[in-house]
Amino acid sequence: WAKFARLNNFYIWLYLAVVGLLGSISLVSIDLIFKYVVFAGRDNFINLTQNYFLQYLSFIVWTVVLAFASSFIVKKLCYASAGSGIPDLKSIFSGFWNPAVVQPMVLVWKVLGLLFSYGAGLSIGKEGPYIHISAILANTLLNIKPFKNIAPNETQRAQMLASCCALGVAATFGSPIGGVLFSIEVTGTYYLISNYWRAFFTATMGAVGIKILLSNPSNDLLESYRTFFANSNLNLATVQLLAFIITGVLCGLLSSLFISMYTKIYNWKKHHQDFLTKITPYGEVVIVAAITAIINFPLKFLRLDHASAVHTMFTAHDNVNSEELEIWTGSMPFNHGIILACFMYIVVKLVLTSVSITLPIPYGIYIPMFAIGAAVGRFVGEIMKVIFPHMEDIYPTGYAVVGAAALCGGATRTVSSAVIILELTNDLTYMVPVLLGVVLSCGIGNLMNRSIYDCFLKNKALPYLPFYKVKSDSLLASDVMKRDLYYVTQKTTLSQIANVLDKVNEPAIPIVESDANLQLIGTISRTTLEEVISYHERLHSYSFSRSPLS
Amino acid sequence: WAKFARLNNFYIWLYLAVVGLLGSISLVSIDLIFKYVVFAGRDNFINLTQNYFLQYLSFIVWTVVLAFASSFIVKKLCYASAGSGIPDLKSIFSGFWNPAVVQPMVLVWKVLGLLFSYGAGLSIGKEGPYIHISAILANTLLNIKPFKNIAPNETQRAQMLASCCALGVAATFGSPIGGVLFSIEVTGTYYLISNYWRAFFTATMGAVGIKILLSNPSNDLLESYRTFFANSNLNLATVQLLAFIITGVLCGLLSSLFISMYTKIYNWKKHHQDFLTKITPYGEVVIVAAITAIINFPLKFLRLDHASAVHTMFTAHDNVNSEELEIWTGSMPFNHGIILACFMYIVVKLVLTSVSITLPIPYGIYIPMFAIGAAVGRFVGEIMKVIFPHMEDIYPTGYAVVGAAALCGGATRTVSSAVIILELTNDLTYMVPVLLGVVLSCGIGNLMNRSIYDCFLKNKALPYLPFYKVKSDSLLASDVMKRDLYYVTQKTTLSQIANVLDKVNEPAIPIVESDANLQLIGTISRTTLEEVISYHERLHSYSFSRSPLS
Repeated sequence: WAKFARLNNFYIWLYLAVVGLLGSISLVSIDLIFKYVVFAGRDNFINLTQNYFLQYLSFIVWTVVLAFASSFIVKKLCYASAGSGIPDLKSIFSGFWNPAVVQPMVLVWKVLGLLFSYGAGLSIGKEGPYIHISAILANTLLNIKPFKNIAPNETQRAQMLASCCALGVAATFGSPIGGVLFSIEVTGTYYLISNYWRAFFTATMGAVGIKILLSNPSNDLLESYRTFFANSNLNLATVQLLAFIITGVLCGLLSSLFISMYTKIYNWKKHHQDFLTKITPYGEVVIVAAITAIINFPLKFLRLDHASAVHTMFTAHDNVNSEELEIWTGSMPFNHGIILACFMYIVVKLVLTSVSITLPIPYGIYIPMFAIGAAVGRFVGEIMKVIFPHMEDIYPTGYAVVGAAALCGGATRTVSSAVIILELTNDLTYMVPVLLGVVLSCGIGNLMNRSIYDCFLKNKALPYLPFYKVKSDSLLASDVMKRDLYYVTQKTTLSQIANVLDKVNEPAIPIVESDANLQLIGTISRTTLEEVISYHERLHSYSFSRSPLS
Repeated sequence: WAKFARLNNFYIWLYLAVVGLLGSISLVSIDLIFKYVVFAGRDNFINLTQNYFLQYLSFIVWTVVLAFASSFIVKKLCYASAGSGIPDLKSIFSGFWNPAVVQPMVLVWKVLGLLFSYGAGLSIGKEGPYIHISAILANTLLNIKPFKNIAPNETQRAQMLASCCALGVAATFGSPIGGVLFSIEVTGTYYLISNYWRAFFTATMGAVGIKILLSNPSNDLLESYRTFFANSNLNLATVQLLAFIITGVLCGLLSSLFISMYTKIYNWKKHHQDFLTKITPYGEVVIVAAITAIINFPLKFLRLDHASAVHTMFTAHDNVNSEELEIWTGSMPFNHGIILACFMYIVVKLVLTSVSITLPIPYGIYIPMFAIGAAVGRFVGEIMKVIFPHMEDIYPTGYAVVGAAALCGGATRTVSSAVIILELTNDLTYMVPVLLGVVLSCGIGNLMNRSIYDCFLKNKALPYLPFYKVKSDSLLASDVMKRDLYYVTQKTTLSQIANVLDKVNEPAIPIVESDANLQLIGTISRTTLEEVISYHERLHSYSFSRSPLS
């Protein structure tokens, strides 16, 4: 038995190594497709003509068509591919196994949907989907022969996936340590230390894979975030400490503002759902895409993809990459130009992002948050430079790094964003200000509202354990339970099921023995039932009454 | 009530901030005392004479006297100040609260004992004691007015201390992120995510404190570990990947060799305890100190403190700090000289460290492991340079960084050592090789034996939950329970207690109602009983029969 156990253990490590290498190869491939196919294609498409207005028009057309395609995939082909994927995984890690989220088919649709939505140029990111993709990959491998026995039950399966979450972050940002911390933070309440080891191992394997894949120096997928600060010995015992604190607090306020904007827009749309879908089923996507394109095209710095914007904020100053800054300042005098541009960037991108993430498309929020946060930090840094023109070691680029980590940390309420930013920039000079900024931003944010992931969880009505907090010792089950009970039995017909789905919004429906004997046999997920219904709808070309997608 | 809860929460954050700042101030102060009082004192003492042999003699005298003083403190004044402190804390975090370890008086004796033992120049480190010191500080603050209510029971108290452990690492190495990971790893089985936040906050506060305290650039306490690699874009897709793997595996083997050497020496000494203590109560300390001094003095590179050795290994090469390398190579040709010196350094220091940590003194093992591991890595790197003289991007200094992390990771079986090394060197160029080396070293080590901390735990007979693994389903309590039961009652006399302590080696003794009715009332720690006995011994100048210190 001891030998078997050791063998079993060996398969776990083999599994993690395979997932790590395979995951990094897949994610780097997607990155390369974005760079050399999607964005290169857009540039070619726009440059078909030299006329400014025709270019403007083709930019709008590109954005709208791709956004529509992405939304079509989500609405018609695979609803589970919508959104970030992290909330769904959080729900799984907190103990509610949901196979619909990690099916192999979701992988295909999520990748396609992401190629369209991110490729459209909407104000969204891609790391949430990347983490989702690596989780699906990990889950799929668990069904293959040698790895079939390493996670026999759902809890162990969920733990394996949690370890592999680290890989998604490691591969997206080249940040294995940040990935491990992120996988700890998404776990919710209690973290099993044996997972820590696995997460570290997988993330390291992923990082090794990426290092090898990207060893060709012409390939600058991650290089663009690298910073090189001259002042490796940052002096904190000056007014700069105060400025970093201000950056952290400002980012905390802006991130909670962003979250409440998102919630307001989401609730407004939910309230007018019937009206919106009746008039134009894909109207919201088309309108948001068109507005995004119309706003972004004229001002060159708004049109930049987030990675390029982050690159400028992090590295371009007086004498390094200064031609990049001209995109931002135009003909204005340098200092005032960049301050104004940052301000505009913050306002426009915060609004666009909070609207975009209410759309039924695959999206992430890390990279937009990085870009907006970098602008916030740069804004503070440049103002510092104006106020203290003779202080030598004020580097607005360093403030941009602090701001990026702080805003992202504030929105996601994870401190791992600090580590991710440090690994992404490959530079620890601003480590202490970055940590301080993130801690302050998260703290301020927590005073105001919930994290963006928790909002997603709530809006998707996903079950999640840490939400259920005991408010009082005298609280009884009867105080919180729902009395309008809906269930299915062996004899429930499809149209009855469609009715039940219409009436309740729960992610799982109880199955009972019969109408007479309400003994609980188990539960079945809403998604499974919906799939069964749509399968039969397609089979018989008949439409059951259904609740709108929410 | 909500207001009270919020207030209560506020006090937790205030507490963590105070611990963070106070801890960093204390630990930096101790560091400054080492630099400007202890080591400066030693240099002055040795340089009193110009005669080589008199200098040799004063070096030996200094080492022996300070080692003796340190051992005296541990043996006569405070046994709880012995060793690293991390195993005792691990035991506490795994659920066995032991107030004797975190009493305020232990702080005083631990600092004094460490000043003597580390100041003597023995082959030991200081970070274990630093972590212990910050835990005691954290525990002491919990008894003070505004913080009295934030941790009403022992479990919560232990959790608070776990958060503050991160501070010890953050302050010793300037490594807040590594500190948080370390505090996760020492926790054992399940980690409460809310602790993660607290650990991050405390570590950040500590790092801010240190940044401000060490803002004077003349103060190079942590600067000496900084590396600056020219090849910021390390190419892994070459034979170097293999060399890094070899470094990791070699470090794994050496670290498990080190642990089994330590275990062998410890067991040999335990077996001959009576003989050793009868002949010379402080003989072992004096002998080990004298041998250390005799070996270290003639060869200049063995006499270096660990930090300087690490500095040379990490930074000195062909044209940077090359005068430092002459200490190592002497008059030999460069490449062969450094390879030979590294080999000698590894052998001598591994043996000396494994002997030194069996002594009854306060010690740490991180910094010696860093120094030896740096030599291992440098050894591999220089051999690579000899084999591939025309390959451009082989930097033996980078191998030293990988080796330092890998050997330390292998000995402690913590992957956080990778993060600590990265933060310590303030350079992420070798991040992926470092992670790979540490993962391999830990993996190889785990195949061979237990971590050094687990050996300490076992040797100190400390209770620790993860040790108790279920071996078989048919195992009954009666199969493992001890049948020779010793207990104390309300009526047990002091000499009976002394007898019980003689006979059992458990850290806690059960208290029962009476000899007739064996109902369990509670337990009392061995240390408390020993203190009561020695108090009465001093009071009445009478000696109860006692077991020897083990």
